[in-house]
Order: sequence, then C-alpha cells, then structure tokens
Amino acid sequence: MNIIKDTDHILLMYDRKRKWLLKVRQGENFATHKGIVYFDDIIGKQYGTCIFTKPQGFKMRVFKPLPSDFILKMGRTTQILYPEDCGLILMYTGIGPGSLVLEAGTGSGALTCILGNYVKPNGHIFSYDIREKSLKQAKKNIQKAKLENVVSIEYGDILKDVEHSDLDSVVLDLATPWLAIKRVKNFLKLSGTFASFSPTIEQVKKTVVALEGEEFYDINTFELIKRRIIVKENATRPTTRMIGHTGYLTFARRIQEIENPYQAKKPEKAEKVDLSDLSDIIKL
Amino acid sequence: MNIIKDTDHILLMYDRKRKWLLKVRQGENFATHKGIVYFDDIIGKQYGTCIFTKPQGFKMRVFKPLPSDFILKMGRTTQILYPEDCGLILMYTGIGPGSLVLEAGTGSGALTCILGNYVKPNGHIFSYDIREKSLKQAKKNIQKAKLENVVSIEYGDILKDVEHSDLDSVVLDLATPWLAIKRVKNFLKLSGTFASFSPTIEQVKKTVVALEGEEFYDINTFELIKRRIIVKENATRPTTRMIGHTGYLTFARRIQEIENPYQAKKPEKAEKVDLSDLSDIIKL
Amino acid sequence: MNIIKDTDHILLMYDRKRKWLLKVRQGENFATHKGIVYFDDIIGKQYGTCIFTKPQGFKMRVFKPLPSDFILKMGRTTQILYPEDCGLILMYTGIGPGSLVLEAGTGSGALTCILGNYVKPNGHIFSYDIREKSLKQAKKNIQKAKLENVVSIEYGDILKDVEHSDLDSVVLDLATPWLAIKRVKNFLKLSGTFASFSPTIEQVKKTVVALEGEEFYDINTFELIKRRIIVKENATRPTTRMIGHTGYLTFARRIQEIENPYQAKKPEKAEKVDLSDLSDIIKL
Amino acid sequence: MNIIKDTDHILLMYDRKRKWLLKVRQGENFATHKGIVYFDDIIGKQYGTCIFTKPQGFKMRVFKPLPSDFILKMGRTTQILYPEDCGLILMYTGIGPGSLVLEAGTGSGALTCILGNYVKPNGHIFSYDIREKSLKQAKKNIQKAKLENVVSIEYGDILKDVEHSDLDSVVLDLATPWLAIKRVKNFLKLSGTFASFSPTIEQVKKTVVALEGEEFYDINTFELIKRRIIVKENATRPTTRMIGHTGYLTFARRIQEIENPYQAKKPEKAEKVDLSDLSDIIKL
Repeated sequence: MNIIKDTDHILLMYDRKRKWLLKVRQGENFATHKGIVYFDDIIGKQYGTCIFTKPQGFKMRVFKPLPSDFILKMGRTTQILYPEDCGLILMYTGIGPGSLVLEAGTGSGALTCILGNYVKPNGHIFSYDIREKSLKQAKKNIQKAKLENVVSIEYGDILKDVEHSDLDSVVLDLATPWLAIKRVKNFLKLSGTFASFSPTIEQVKKTVVALEGEEFYDINTFELIKRRIIVKENATRPTTRMIGHTGYLTFARRIQEIENPYQAKKPEKAEKVDLSDLSDIIKL
Repeated sequence: MNIIKDTDHILLMYDRKRKWLLKVRQGENFATHKGIVYFDDIIGKQYGTCIFTKPQGFKMRVFKPLPSDFILKMGRTTQILYPEDCGLILMYTGIGPGSLVLEAGTGSGALTCILGNYVKPNGHIFSYDIREKSLKQAKKNIQKAKLENVVSIEYGDILKDVEHSDLDSVVLDLATPWLAIKRVKNFLKLSGTFASFSPTIEQVKKTVVALEGEEFYDINTFELIKRRIIVKENATRPTTRMIGHTGYLTFARRIQEIENPYQAKKPEKAEKVDLSDLSDIIKL
Repeated sequence: MNIIKDTDHILLMYDRKRKWLLKVRQGENFATHKGIVYFDDIIGKQYGTCIFTKPQGFKMRVFKPLPSDFILKMGRTTQILYPEDCGLILMYTGIGPGSLVLEAGTGSGALTCILGNYVKPNGHIFSYDIREKSLKQAKKNIQKAKLENVVSIEYGDILKDVEHSDLDSVVLDLATPWLAIKRVKNFLKLSGTFASFSPTIEQVKKTVVALEGEEFYDINTFELIKRRIIVKENATRPTTRMIGHTGYLTFARRIQEIENPYQAKKPEKAEKVDLSDLSDIIKL
Repeated sequence: MNIIKDTDHILLMYDRKRKWLLKVRQGENFATHKGIVYFDDIIGKQYGTCIFTKPQGFKMRVFKPLPSDFILKMGRTTQILYPEDCGLILMYTGIGPGSLVLEAGTGSGALTCILGNYVKPNGHIFSYDIREKSLKQAKKNIQKAKLENVVSIEYGDILKDVEHSDLDSVVLDLATPWLAIKRVKNFLKLSGTFASFSPTIEQVKKTVVALEGEEFYDINTFELIKRRIIVKENATRPTTRMIGHTGYLTFARRIQEIENPYQAKKPEKAEKVDLSDLSDIIKL
C-alpha cells in the first residue's frame, strides 16, 4: 500500500541539498528552517504527495525512502559506503532472497538495512560489531526499517568468538579485514562469496594476500567513481566537485581445493606485470 | 542446497579471461581448448568444487553464478549495462522484494534476470521488447534462470500499446526513452521510481527535459567509472586498459503536484550555472 | 640566479592550504594570521629558504613560483583552466619557443603567463578580451611576471575586428568559441593548431561541428580528471573530495584541402557509432 | 618557415588510427597498405598540405609533428608517459626556457625531446640511462628532432656515478626512484623541483617516504585520467575503451632547513587520516 501511516519512514525533501529521513509520528512535528512540518498533515496521504510548511507555506515533497536515501541519510558513526558500493556488493556477492549473510562491522547499520531488505523473506543478516555506540544506533535503525525479522545485530568480535557455518556470503567493513580471512573462510559454504570494503590500498593488499593464502579464488578489487551530470539546456557537464574516492571493494569466492589426479600442468598466468602488451593499443 | 543437479546453472572458470555460463545436462559435455568437461563429473558435487578436463587434466573451477556473471556472460544482442550499473539501478529505484516493475526493452534479458531475482517471491517484472530476436533470447535466459514465475517477457511497444498502473518502478533501456515518459508516468504509483540507461548525452538531455515537463522530481543523472586494481606484492596499480564508459543512468521519482494554498514563495534554485562557487575551494 | 631581489615573485607557503603568490617589495611586509612576513628578511636569500613570522616565529617556506602556482593563485575573474589543462594545451598545440599565438579571452592572464613563458625568447602571445576588468587584471599579472616583451594584451573582439595571419596556434577560452572558427582559421598557418576550453558539452558540440565545416582536421576532444593521492605509511588512498570536472579541451589542426586528382576512394570511416565492437573485450 | 625540406620531420596521417612519424628524405618513399608516399611529392610543400598515394590515390595529410605526436609515436623500449603526464611535469616542475635539467632514465627519448624543446635556447637536458638499447634509440631520436645542442644523452647510473649541481629540476623515470633521492637532492639548487613517474603505488610510497626524509617539501602525488569524448550529432559520449592508468607523478621542491630561532610552535598538521571531515559534505 502506498498510504503513509503512523510510524512509517518518509524522505522529506525541500530541494537537492535539504532532505531528511524521518519517522512519521502522530501528533508530532518536524521543524525546519523553512517552517514546521506537521506529521498529521502527512498521515493518510500517499507517498509522492507534497505538503506545505506552517506558517510560511514552503512546499515539501514526501517520498518513500529508497536504499540510496538510507545509505546517505542514516546517522553515521563511521566512514561510509556509498549507494554505488552497496549495489556492487549485491552484484558480486549474489546476496539476494534467502541468502544467509554475516556482516562485520555493523557501523550505522545502513548497509545492514540494504542487505536485510534484499534477503527477505527467508534469508538472514547476522551483523556484528564491537563498538557499543554502533550497535545501539544500528539496532535503532533496523527497528525503524522494520527489519528485525531478517536482521540480528549483536556484539561480537569475528576475529575471536563468533561462529557460523554454511553462510552464502561474508561482508566485511573492518579496519583489519585480513585478520578475519582464516576464520570467515570456515563460515562460508563452498562457492560462497566474500566482500570487503576498505578505504586504503594497504588494507586491500593485506586482504588480497590473506585471501590468496586460503581457499579463495576469483579475487577482484574494484573502485567505483560516480559522477553526477548536471543537465541544463545549454550547460550540460559533470559536477565541478565530486567525491573522488569512497573506498576499494575486494571480492572472492570460496573454493574447495582438490589434488589433481592427472598431475595436470598448472594453468598459465593470465596476467603479467610487465606492460609490453600496451604496445598494440597505442596507435595514437 | 549447494549440490549441483541436472539443469542447474554453473559458472565454469579456467582463469580470469576464460569462463563460461553453462547449464549442466546429464550425459552431456562441454568442449574447451583445454579439454572436455563432462557434466556427469559435476552433478552431485557442491558448487565451489573443481574438476579436471579429459584427457588433459586441466583444473576447472565450478561456481554458482552471481548477478555479475549473468550480466557479463549472457548472450547479448545489444549494448549492455554493467554490474555496477545494475547495482546502482537497485539502489536508486528501490526495486526489491515484492516490487512490480516494467522494463523496456528487454534486450538479452540480463538485467531482467537480475531484477527478477530481487523481486522474488511476490514481485513481478513485466518486460517488453519489439525485437523478435531479443524476445526469443531473453525468454530462453529467463527459463534457464528459472524465473518464469516472477518475470513475463512479451512483445510490446511501450510508446503505444502497453498498459499498466500502480507500478513501483519503470526501467528503460531504449534508444528513445524520452518518447516514453508521458505514458510511463501513468503506469507508476506516486513516489514510484523511474530509471533510464543511455549511452549518449543527447539521449540523456532529451530524457531529462521530458521528465521535467511531467510530474517527476529528484531527477539525477549519474555515470559510473569502474576501475579494477591489480594487487601484486610490489606492483599494485589500476589496470592499464579499462572500459571508460558504459552509459548514463537517469533516475526520477513520480510526484503529485498540488497547488500551494499559501501562495508560498517558490523555493530558490539550489544550483546555479555559474561557477563562482568554485572560488572558495581552490585554495591550491 | 637563485637570489631573491626586490620586485621578484615568490610563493610563500605555510602549509598545503595556506600559500600566497607575492611580489617582494623592499621595506614592505605581508600580514598573515600566523604573523607578519617582512620582505627585507627575504631579499638577498635564496629561493628555497625559510623565514619566520614576527613576532610569533611561525616557519614559512619561500619558493620560486611554478606554472602550477600561477594558474591556481592568480586572481581569477572567470572560471579557470587547471595546470593539467594548460599542460595538455602545450602538448597538443605544440606552443613552444618562437611560437606566434593568439589567445582569446585573456581572463585573469594565468594561461597567458604560462604560454608567454614557453614562447620565449622569440615568440609572442597576442591576447584579447572584451572585458575591461579582465584586461586590467591580466596586464597587471603580465607585468608582475615580467613578460611584457613576449605578451601583448589588448581590447579586441575576435569575432569581429582582430586581424592576424601566419599564427602557429590559436587558443580560445570563450563562451561561444564556435562563432570564432571561421575567422581564426584564416589567422593560422597551414598545420597550425587550434585549442578551445569549454566547461559544457553543448559548447564542445558546436565547436566541433564548426571545425568540421572548415579546413580543420584531427579534431579531438579530451577531458582530464586529476586525482591527488594521499601517501601515508598505512593509509594511502586518493583524496576523498576532488574537482570532478574543469572543462573539455578541443584540439584541431589547420589543413589545406586539395582536390584528389586520382578520384580516390574516400577513406572508410575509422569509427562507427554502434557498439558491437565491444563484444570481443567483454571476456568478463 | 612552414615549407617542408629534406630531413624534416612530418606526421603522415591517413586517419585517426593510421599515422606515422617520419623523416622526409629526398628520392625515397614510404610504403603503406594504402599505397606509396613519395617524399619528393612532399618536399617543397607546406605543412598542412595533403598528398595522394601512388598508384591508388588515397589522400594522406602531412602535419608538423606536435609534442603529443612525439610522445605517442616514438619507438618505445619501455612503458611510457602520455602527453597529459608530460604536460603536468612542465606545470609542476617549471621546466622552461633556460632550465638545467637532469633526466634519468632516458628510455626512448620521447620525454627528453619534449623537455629539450622547452628549455631552448639556453637550457640543457642531461639525460642518463644504463640500458644501451635505450641510449642508442634515444640518441637517434634526439638527432632526428635536431635537439643535439640542448640535450646530451649519456651512459650513467645516477644511483652511483653521475655528478651535477645547481640544477633547476630532476625528472626520474626509474624502476627504483627512491634510491636516487639522497643523491639528486644535492644536484638541485634550492627551490629546485623534483618529478618522478612510476606505474605502481609501491614505488610511489617508497619515493614519498624518501623525499620526506630529505630536504624536500610540498610533496604531491597525482594521477591523470584522460577521456576522449566522441562528438557526433546525436551520439556524443566518452569512448567506450580507454587507458585507465599510465602511472603516478610525484612532485617535490628542494628546501633548505633552518633552525627556528623563535622555537616556534610546529605548524599543525594540515591533513588528518581520519575521515570524520566527510560528515559535512554528505548532505545527499
């Protein structure tokens, strides 16, 4: 249903830069610099409507929040993944309906909410953090998003005391993801997927080396650069300022190694370090 | 379950550049330049296993296909969206469990498969194309992916004869998306989302102008640049060659316009064309 | 000589974000929020020295200004080219020692200074603008840079009343560069080069169409994205925020068309619009 | 003069992908797959002319080579800097008329030619390499470019036996640039500039650490991404394939350290590793 009810989430939007992720509460209001928004004016209307602040009468749009809104608007205690990063995680982990997923650390719970939404109705996100502040905030966000049935958020240090098995995917947003590789390997079913988000190249290197040392394969590191294009009748161009770097995403698949009964030749390396291959493309 | 059965999909992988999306069929085999893969060697094993070609004994990995594999490996009749584009569509349209979605055109059905997987179990993708070849191929791909229950693929020209209402999202991959805006607006519920993929800036401009002329809001155009990072002990760097451009993604939300009873001031423009704002950031 | 004299230019640098392009003047000083810099403390020292503010004693570095400093620190009245754009102009126009160059518009004179420096000692930059404020500021900047012998800055509208011939290069930083193509074509010697900087894609399109309609060849449009890498012992990564777009640079070479006495076949098109060529590189 | 003479360089161009950097020689010819080009048809004509192959009569353009042509067309024995990289080196080193510059290694001599051209008439490029093949090829290229007066190319290992002083700039294109920092520091005059090109991040890190340990300041690492824009009436877009990474450029300025007689407070760090500063820009 498209009707806004008490306790529903909305995205309230004045313009591109001024928007808020809110929980509608009967009898209450939200004060902006453009006037007051009374939730009773919203309840019973459809998402997509507009209302007017009192007493100034500024127009505000009311939308059903999207994953991109959750990611960018949830209270953050830590650095964040952007919508494009979360989307890529879905594509390269295969997290979807029914997936059983471990996430560490939870952070603000923004990615947790996204993943939780996509594993419905039979999947589950087991999310861990060791920061009390994050746990508290994330639990609140999960409740707001009404995902308690598919997401559990708990205190836990995956480097030490968490135990799982037969998971479809493991998603790490940790300062030291490489230390967790050996343990999370055993949490994953075969062909299960691994994803790790790290802002620095040193973290990426250690993580990739750790993955190569365990039963992981098809290890890939990507970085996404998102540009917004300003479209105007006679002035179309990318934005002048942009976020140049959010972080690197490293993916891998859990494998089972089997001794080669044929004593086969090893596959030749697909990629070499030297750049001689460049020669054929530089035709100016 | 993680056991590979007859008619299941697998990703067979020799190395980064040599991998195939296959349907396992009892009694049959798949010939590669590295030897023959017998499906009976695979059936009954777990995803994540490895097998050996006959007679040479080259090792091949067997994975459960991911969305990224579907996107990049499905037979293509047209230009394609990449995994990062598909992920961004999910994040900015909110397509998820239960969503009712119109897609046009179907193309190879790769995006259709992705979307179909994420609306399970109660959502539905209504996908249309006017190219018989695409329809045929896409239908085959949907069957392979066992998504017939959540995806319907039909001949239809959304510029003319398709009718829908109360959809959550409309996703266009058309040569002339702007011509469809007026019609698809009425297919969407309020706060419903619109996405369009176009390789050229002219398509983007016409689409944005058309959206601005109808009841759409929060119109955004993005482009994603994905770089793969080669991680080596002493030679970490982005790949020399890359895909520099796949296309632009334009998103919007369906709104309901209401006359302002307060005769409020119009919101001031959030963004201006002039670049004077640059001055404060250029501190060298 | 490396000794700083009265009236010389210096780059005074406190840290990455606080630096100033100054003219040293005997007996005078420069006040910063970190204390006063007395020029008499600098005169007679070598570039590369450091001095200390009075009375606080903060350390300030004193450098010989580089082209990149000029570009980023000269008073700007208009949007700007960045160092990377200026460098690319040199590479694709061939402007160098002895070149005769027309520039329009002058703007702040930053690019004018760069070009003036590189055509020394026998070349010349003829720079025009129709904005009195720009002319005034640019003239001041040229004097500061002691380039009066190789640069002349004058009021002039190249769409109408400026006349030149046998120039090596024409460099445009105009709002409507396409209107100038027909005229500047005749200013250029054969094989002479054309460069135009424009922030929007609409300007680029009109300029390219105009170039294609005149005797120009090898028309190329580029955009440069510069990322700064923060190098830290354990936290190396691109900067989070960056300038995502400065503008597009379009280059072309002046040709002489000659009727083909052989009635030769036309060269086949090197590039096609369709993207079918993609198929061979998408090997996942 | 614009007339092509015996032994002059030309860029012969059939289309975007087929062009050649050639030395015109009286009585000789150049065979292409489109027919034979007789140099005697070219000598005496102006740069910018076109000629026709024999016997087929295909049209070929004849241009004066630009720095960008030299960079992309000179025989390469090693990985290369691109025109945008060379342009950035000029802007951030200040290499220009009269500059005294050390370059190591010489490679194909492409960058050497560019730099040599810009230090004319009174500057000099001292270029060293330890690879005999590079030296041979580079010497040939310098002769072709008629730059023997401003460029000297010699066998020399700057890690050991080369000696210089009072140079304006040092430009390194070495596998292990960090090993050279201590020595080249003494080659530079105060406020002299350092540039190093490296394809991998590990090289960059070691180089930056070495620079920080010596009397260098204002250390910056950049990477340039160049996109070509295909401009078509109704199909304008960046090229699908592009060079995603050439290398990183690290710049620094030579300083003189002086003890602070005021025992001043140390300047606070301009940049911190933590990303908390992000919070204020993520206003969606």
